[in-house]
Amino acid sequence: MTALDDRSVQPTVTSGPIMGSEKVYLEVDDPASGRTLKVPQRRVGLSNGSHIDLYDTSGPYTDSSATIDVHAGLARTREAWIDDREPINGAVTQLAYAKAGVITPEMRFIAAREGMDPDFVRSEVAIGRAIIPVNRRHPESEPMIIGKNFLVKINANIGNSAVTSSVAEEVEKMVWASRWGADTIMDLSTGKRIHETREWIIRNSPVPVGTVPIYQALEKVNGDPASLTWEIYRDTIIEQAEQGVDYMTVHAGVLLRYVPLTAKRVTGIVSRGGSIMAAWCLAHHKESFLYTHYEELCEIFREYDITFSLGDGLRPGSIADANDEAQFAELRTLGELTHIAREHDVQVMIEGPGHVPMHKIAENVRLEEELCGEAPFYTLGPLATDIAPGYDHITSAIGAAQIGWCGTAMLCYVTPKEHLGLPNRDDVKTGVITYKLAAHSADLAKGHPRAQEWDDALSQARFEFRWQDQFNLALDPETAQAFHDETLPAEPAKTAHFCSMCGPKFCSMKISQDVRKYAEENGLSTVEAIEKGMQDKAEEFADQGKRVYLPIAD
Amino acid sequence: MTALDDRSVQPTVTSGPIMGSEKVYLEVDDPASGRTLKVPQRRVGLSNGSHIDLYDTSGPYTDSSATIDVHAGLARTREAWIDDREPINGAVTQLAYAKAGVITPEMRFIAAREGMDPDFVRSEVAIGRAIIPVNRRHPESEPMIIGKNFLVKINANIGNSAVTSSVAEEVEKMVWASRWGADTIMDLSTGKRIHETREWIIRNSPVPVGTVPIYQALEKVNGDPASLTWEIYRDTIIEQAEQGVDYMTVHAGVLLRYVPLTAKRVTGIVSRGGSIMAAWCLAHHKESFLYTHYEELCEIFREYDITFSLGDGLRPGSIADANDEAQFAELRTLGELTHIAREHDVQVMIEGPGHVPMHKIAENVRLEEELCGEAPFYTLGPLATDIAPGYDHITSAIGAAQIGWCGTAMLCYVTPKEHLGLPNRDDVKTGVITYKLAAHSADLAKGHPRAQEWDDALSQARFEFRWQDQFNLALDPETAQAFHDETLPAEPAKTAHFCSMCGPKFCSMKISQDVRKYAEENGLSTVEAIEKGMQDKAEEFADQGKRVYLPIAD
Repeated sequence: MTALDDRSVQPTVTSGPIMGSEKVYLEVDDPASGRTLKVPQRRVGLSNGSHIDLYDTSGPYTDSSATIDVHAGLARTREAWIDDREPINGAVTQLAYAKAGVITPEMRFIAAREGMDPDFVRSEVAIGRAIIPVNRRHPESEPMIIGKNFLVKINANIGNSAVTSSVAEEVEKMVWASRWGADTIMDLSTGKRIHETREWIIRNSPVPVGTVPIYQALEKVNGDPASLTWEIYRDTIIEQAEQGVDYMTVHAGVLLRYVPLTAKRVTGIVSRGGSIMAAWCLAHHKESFLYTHYEELCEIFREYDITFSLGDGLRPGSIADANDEAQFAELRTLGELTHIAREHDVQVMIEGPGHVPMHKIAENVRLEEELCGEAPFYTLGPLATDIAPGYDHITSAIGAAQIGWCGTAMLCYVTPKEHLGLPNRDDVKTGVITYKLAAHSADLAKGHPRAQEWDDALSQARFEFRWQDQFNLALDPETAQAFHDETLPAEPAKTAHFCSMCGPKFCSMKISQDVRKYAEENGLSTVEAIEKGMQDKAEEFADQGKRVYLPIAD
Repeated sequence: MTALDDRSVQPTVTSGPIMGSEKVYLEVDDPASGRTLKVPQRRVGLSNGSHIDLYDTSGPYTDSSATIDVHAGLARTREAWIDDREPINGAVTQLAYAKAGVITPEMRFIAAREGMDPDFVRSEVAIGRAIIPVNRRHPESEPMIIGKNFLVKINANIGNSAVTSSVAEEVEKMVWASRWGADTIMDLSTGKRIHETREWIIRNSPVPVGTVPIYQALEKVNGDPASLTWEIYRDTIIEQAEQGVDYMTVHAGVLLRYVPLTAKRVTGIVSRGGSIMAAWCLAHHKESFLYTHYEELCEIFREYDITFSLGDGLRPGSIADANDEAQFAELRTLGELTHIAREHDVQVMIEGPGHVPMHKIAENVRLEEELCGEAPFYTLGPLATDIAPGYDHITSAIGAAQIGWCGTAMLCYVTPKEHLGLPNRDDVKTGVITYKLAAHSADLAKGHPRAQEWDDALSQARFEFRWQDQFNLALDPETAQAFHDETLPAEPAKTAHFCSMCGPKFCSMKISQDVRKYAEENGLSTVEAIEKGMQDKAEEFADQGKRVYLPIAD
């Protein structure tokens, strides 16, 4: 009997398409295996007959033809791919295959998903600038990539605590977060039922799942960091590896000698894992067992193809502490550990801050790339100011967008409840949408080849008063429509050439349409010609359309 | 009888101190007049006996000793200052005095408010890099400055439309917006009662009030742009000048020859004022009367000391249109107009976009400074992506923080309802708080000398588990406390050394406190010494405090 056979757990998960979208699959041939890979897309059909296909993280839950059975878990689609493979140089990791020049089905899937060449995907993985988090024991997940030359990804943290939420709630939070765009989720559960909760989440998750194993190890020693041992930690790693955790946060860079560097900080150590390891080091006055046993960890990770997410246990917890000696000392050690992992053919990403004012953001990325051999950077925000608790999804989106532009590959979301309490379902959605818009802003700024199509489609719909298309193209169609309908609920308003801001008159965009119509009717192809044409026809224009009133905003 | 005698209008305005704060006044001597100026501050008293004084835009409404009578309007404090003054070179503007080396009481007030030297304030105004928007007919307002070397300011747009809100509602929106931190407000009212609404707002506003006079002029010709004339516009300007409008948006840079440059845009012309003037130019095939009569406008503005806010009528309305030829052609004309206004001793700021991806933001500021002689830049966001209607306060806060860092002096807020509908009271607050945090992030990044004090005070309170201090120091104390209390409402939780995320155990910050205590007890003053001390006492530490559990987040 597995955890999922427990009929006392009855998750109700959100399913069905996102408003105005349907699930479609791009069919991609994998010549090596002879298989056809089905790459999911969110297709938004437009009222003008066209459509746009968007990157889709939501798995089968948004496929109206799919049958969802949370007790059975998702289809183990990649199981056959994994079974097919032979170890290469003794390793079964995406990194080992990439180095050997092999394009795995995962890479081919990702290439189609990102609109990139499959060999480019392989080469980015080979040099460690991108990672594909896929534990061989999580064949339910859809392959995705984290790297600066791909779309910026976002992570949503979920997880129960001793008293506050149930297994069923966490399964739904995972489905809910990936529905709105979470590319990975981290299960940060503590308290009882930690193993079962994770089993439920992994078996039903279409996105990679990360954990911080030290949390569970600490539960095993009743919360006393000094009682932790390498053996307890190792056994926890193996337990989670067997379940299928795709990446694990390991705070192996918190060294004994770095702890005093935090003494003069405004906010000391704010990472849970970092403080646990600092406590262990101080209590024993020994070097961290994560550091001393790191090569053994690499061996375990290699066996499953688990990705290291090297944790920044000494990250700054306030603007005052950003970019200080403690933070960068740890980063240098993370760089050392990155290179060791790669020698073992194990993939690595690097976790980053936290709280950083804007002018100190670029330095974080520059140093991380230099010290860690361009391993993908994975940051928590950072918050650009400390003064707005209750709005830290926004203070951190400012930092996240900017650090994403600088080259950060994945952004860990922050919800409005950060620093104050536990996020509820609405907070999770707000956090995910906020981080999707930050990540997309970074994609635009980096010039990702397909990013701007989406903005252009939405703006075109706005300009042409295709209100329903505008809603459907929004990151959050339901909220966009609800806000509109608050003041103008009637159905005709959905096609009206105005909005509630200015009332039922023409808006500023109308004049642009008149100018354009002119150009087309007169066969004018250049701006100079348009101008000439207009001079000739100014009188005519005045007769036709001189009533032009009110635009959307000023 | 004035508009305020109308007893059928009964605004209910929010008054009383912001949670955890009290109004205090810094008393500043003005040697020239012998007066003592009272500079308002929001004082947050802390539970450890200290306090912090913050910049305060809220006027007498948050002074618990003030009597508010909206029918009488605010005290005309600056009337005597204005009456005292002699014209200088025929002008009564702050710019004229600044050029002549005179430090006005307004400049002295501002210097105290910003923590700057009074002569620095004067010199920034003299070279046009900062402006002080103070119509001589608005003696109720508290002097403030807009310029890149001062705190970044924010503006909130309010204003009724034909059907959607009443005069009383707009007065309260003004009070509400300045309560949460709006440095100026713009009254964008249209429809009937436009004059009365403005009268109510100005007489009760502690912050400068801006308008876009073309809106009222258009009402006077029943919404037909082609019927507008210079005379109608001029009379509207004078009407508003007499009422005390402090700055006016004038779209004098929309020239006939620029209109065709918008023909190939994705979203054409999106500025209401811009489209009105484009329509007029096309209908008459003549150059804009705002441009041809610009020197006459300067003469009127000089008489009242009204500041030009030169409007960007051709600003981009989508990511696709950012930084295009139309936008920058108009900007060059705005530069030309800036220099003309300065010759008339009239102050100028320049309005900016709109919709701009992050990588094109810096270019906007660079060009504006170059072409417009460093006149303060005043931007609407910009939105860093178009794909998130319903969340455009956030998409634009990303751009706003960044453009503020680059040197933009004032940020016009965007609410969650942007592009969709009319903001309500909650939307106004969300917009203001979002923009305050963006502006403050920019202040930090620019290294404003006093900005980081606030972050440090809040983070220190967080680190020391002074929950109530953390709430009170927040930009929005009520929301911070409400979010906390959702999961842990009990009073003891306000002093507990934990939060609801991790339950009643110690958090990561505890270990830092132990490390610090060590240093203090042992008289160790450097990091090296601390490390040495810890090595000696590792065993002792282990005995004392080895149970260190769970932090706030990981």
